[in-house]
Formats: sequence, structure tokens, C-alpha cells
Amino acid sequence: MQVSSICLPAKVPVRVKSLHTNPATVNDPTSTAKVAAPKWAQKTITLPPLKRGCHLITSKIVKEVRQELSEYQCGLAHLFLHHTSASLTINENYDYDVRDDTETFLNGIVPEGPSAPWKHTLEGPDDMPAHIKSSMFGCALMIPISNGKLNMGTWQGIWLCEHRDYPTPRTVVVTLNGI
Amino acid sequence: MQVSSICLPAKVPVRVKSLHTNPATVNDPTSTAKVAAPKWAQKTITLPPLKRGCHLITSKIVKEVRQELSEYQCGLAHLFLHHTSASLTINENYDYDVRDDTETFLNGIVPEGPSAPWKHTLEGPDDMPAHIKSSMFGCALMIPISNGKLNMGTWQGIWLCEHRDYPTPRTVVVTLNGI
Amino acid sequence: MQVSSICLPAKVPVRVKSLHTNPATVNDPTSTAKVAAPKWAQKTITLPPLKRGCHLITSKIVKEVRQELSEYQCGLAHLFLHHTSASLTINENYDYDVRDDTETFLNGIVPEGPSAPWKHTLEGPDDMPAHIKSSMFGCALMIPISNGKLNMGTWQGIWLCEHRDYPTPRTVVVTLNGI
Repeated sequence: MQVSSICLPAKVPVRVKSLHTNPATVNDPTSTAKVAAPKWAQKTITLPPLKRGCHLITSKIVKEVRQELSEYQCGLAHLFLHHTSASLTINENYDYDVRDDTETFLNGIVPEGPSAPWKHTLEGPDDMPAHIKSSMFGCALMIPISNGKLNMGTWQGIWLCEHRDYPTPRTVVVTLNGI
Repeated sequence: MQVSSICLPAKVPVRVKSLHTNPATVNDPTSTAKVAAPKWAQKTITLPPLKRGCHLITSKIVKEVRQELSEYQCGLAHLFLHHTSASLTINENYDYDVRDDTETFLNGIVPEGPSAPWKHTLEGPDDMPAHIKSSMFGCALMIPISNGKLNMGTWQGIWLCEHRDYPTPRTVVVTLNGI
Repeated sequence: MQVSSICLPAKVPVRVKSLHTNPATVNDPTSTAKVAAPKWAQKTITLPPLKRGCHLITSKIVKEVRQELSEYQCGLAHLFLHHTSASLTINENYDYDVRDDTETFLNGIVPEGPSAPWKHTLEGPDDMPAHIKSSMFGCALMIPISNGKLNMGTWQGIWLCEHRDYPTPRTVVVTLNGI
């Protein structure tokens, strides 16, 4: 198994096994070490209505927190959707067909319409399926931050999956934490 | 896209785009700034046995950590279930039918009983389906904390989904981190 | 509901309800309290190719971060897979059949082959199913750290689920944060 470290102090070789750890000198007023104090930031983003289906929203999210991200050498970014009929997931960022096929899959395994077995139907035939899909993919993501940027794989992107027929604005709480 | 900030220091207008960030003055013993130091808390909660199905447990969880939550202006709350045959998810907090329909969905897509294709059957016919459902919904949640409370959407609640026929107490490790 | 605290300072009885919280004395240079400053560490691990199916990788992960974990009394460990055709999940750590049955389940609900409805087929018949399975189980985990170790339940383990036919090395970014 290969191991490499990221988020290291400058001038430290990339392949060392030891991790970057901010030294425990915060409590020592006599220390001259420059330790970055842990930082927190939190921001609420309202995405415009998106039609039913899976949408790549990486650039929309990054645009809103690029400046703040740039202040974190090492940390974590949390995205939390305030809704129970949409979801957040990480998946392929290039071919639109992947998002379309994922919507096809979700519609194939969650029954919808007159023959569906749902008791909760007051909010429309697409509502109960939307709740189920929301729990299948989840409403939250946590992504590492390294060197001021979201540290995702080459082909990874952030998706918002809208599960309702009549789209509405969707609220995402972004919380950043790191050094 | 609308953006608003939450978790801001007092007297900062709500609509400013800049995030709340605790200043990096922790290392400066001459600073007079009142910086809230990052805090950690961790607590193990044992939930009583709940029958097979989906259960709203928001109030049970909040009751156990309300006091501690109130000390965090900005942060994250992590819930981690210690089991592989139950799950935690966030979904609708009002209509009981949504929880019932979700249980119906899970039972519909995960085969159970003599015709199911499972090799792992020693612990009963409901055990292997329970493991699968646990990975489908997951055993952990991360929820933002803002102004001393869990920052969830109006209709969101925390669900414990019990996938076994004979319920047992379930352990949840709650970890709070923030300022 | 039973409640117990973990991750407490030494000599504090185990059953007290109050949580462990690191005192807010970091900003007070006159304080003599020994406060552990919040620490961050981040490491990239490359797992060797694993055949299609579910694999228990707890020991592989722990081996790479055991030393660093030992420095955290209380915290969170985040694992983030850099791929969209594999997934990370937490499930049963003992019987191999559970992992095999889970692979059987995934193959049963995600259509694959000539009759599958996918538009995205250029990368092979197993590629689009792999993307869907990746979003079903997710590409990230967050696990509490208590007393220098991952705080999982007795039967819980970390699984890497490889959804492609021709396995490749898989990259996991591990981020540790705590005190």
C-alpha cells in the first residue's frame, strides 16, 4: 500500500509518512511557533430551482466559498441540504448521461403513481418517492480541504438531485473547519 | 443564487457575504480579542429498543445534548450508530406515514425469507436484509450547529431505522465540535 | 434512555452526564491549565487493486494511521474515496458471507448488460452500474475517535466496495481532527 501525505508544511517532502499536525504550542505563550489556529466558517447558500433530475453543482458551490476555502491549508467542508425531497451526492463530473442514467435508476426502483404502495400521497404522487430517494443518497456531504481547495478526485463532482416535479429553491448550509 | 451568512458575530448584518471566522489570534498572547476556543464534546447515548421500522428520534437526541449544544455558536454534530443492522437518516419529521412507507420500500427491494439469495442466514431471515439496509441509509449523520441548536430544515428530523425483528437497545456516539 | 460519557478527562467517573469539553483557556496566557490544542492531520492512502465485491479494509486503514490516532483523546476521522465507481461503507466485520451477499444485492437491483437502460456505456457495461452503486453507499465515512482509537461498535468494520470488473488502485484521503 502506497502512502503519501498532503497538507504538509512547506518544504516537507511529499512522500514522508508522518502527517501534518499543527503543534500543541497554542497554549504556550512563550512559543515563537506560528501555529494556525483552527477556524470555523458557516454560510447558507440558496440554489435556484432545478428541474427533477441530477445536476452538477460543484462550480456553484465553489464560487460561493472560494475565497474562504483559500484560507484553509487543511480541513473539512460540510454541505447540508435543508430538505427531505432532494439529495446531495458525489459522482461523475463529465458525462451528462451519467446524471441522466442515475435519475432513470432512481425512478426504476422507487414506485410512483397509482399503483405505488404509499400511504403518504397528499402532497402528490412524486412526494413519497422523493422522500425515499433523499434517504437513499442522503442530504449531506463532507469533503476534505487541502491547500485551499476541495480535495476531490479527478472525476468527482457535487450533485444536487432534485426529486420533485415542481422545483423550488434549495438551501444548503456550508460549514468549513480547519487550519 | 442567494447567499446569506449565519453564525455571525453579534451586530454583523445578516446579509454580508463574508463568513464568520474566528480570528487567528489564539497564538498571540498580547491580543485582547475574545476568541472562542474550539471545543469538543463526546457522549454515548443508549436508545431503548424500538420495533422494526423507522422512528423519529430528534427529541430524544436533542434532550441529551441540549445543554452542550447551547454552548456552540457554530459547529458540527456527529451521530454514529454502533450497529450494522439499523441505520440513521434524516427525513420528514411530521407525517408518520412517511416513515411507514419508507419501511415498506426497504422491505420491497431487499429480499427476505426462504426465497432470498442470502448465504448469511445463521442469525435469522431478517439479519442479512438488515445489514444491507444499514449500508443503504448509513450509520452516521453530520448536522450543522448554529446559534446553539441543530441547524436542520423545517421538515427535517433524525430517524433511527430498526431493521431487526427483535429490537435491542441501540448505542449512538454523539460528537460535538465547534466554537 | 441510558447515557454515558466517553472521552472524559482522567479521574472523572464514567457515568457522569456532563460531556468532556476542552476548557476555553486557550486564549488566556496566564492560565496554567493543560489544554490540548485541536489538531489536524491529513494523509492520502493508496489501496492496492481489489476485485469486484465488498472488502473489509479496517486493518489496512488503521495500520496507516494508528500512530496518529493514538494522539487524539477525542475527535473524528474522515475517510474520503477519490473515485466514482467504488464506495466506502461500514458494515459487519466477521462473516465473509455478509460482504458476498451485499455484492449479490447490489448486482440484483442495478441492471447491467445489454438489456440495461443506460446511455452511458462507452466505458463498459459495468461502469454505469458502478456509478450508481457509488452514490448508493457513498464515497465517504466519518468515524468518532475516542481514547486514541476509532470508536466503532463490536461488529462494525470499514468496507471498500469495488464496483468495477477490472480493479485499479484506489485513493483514500484520511483527515483526523480532535484533541
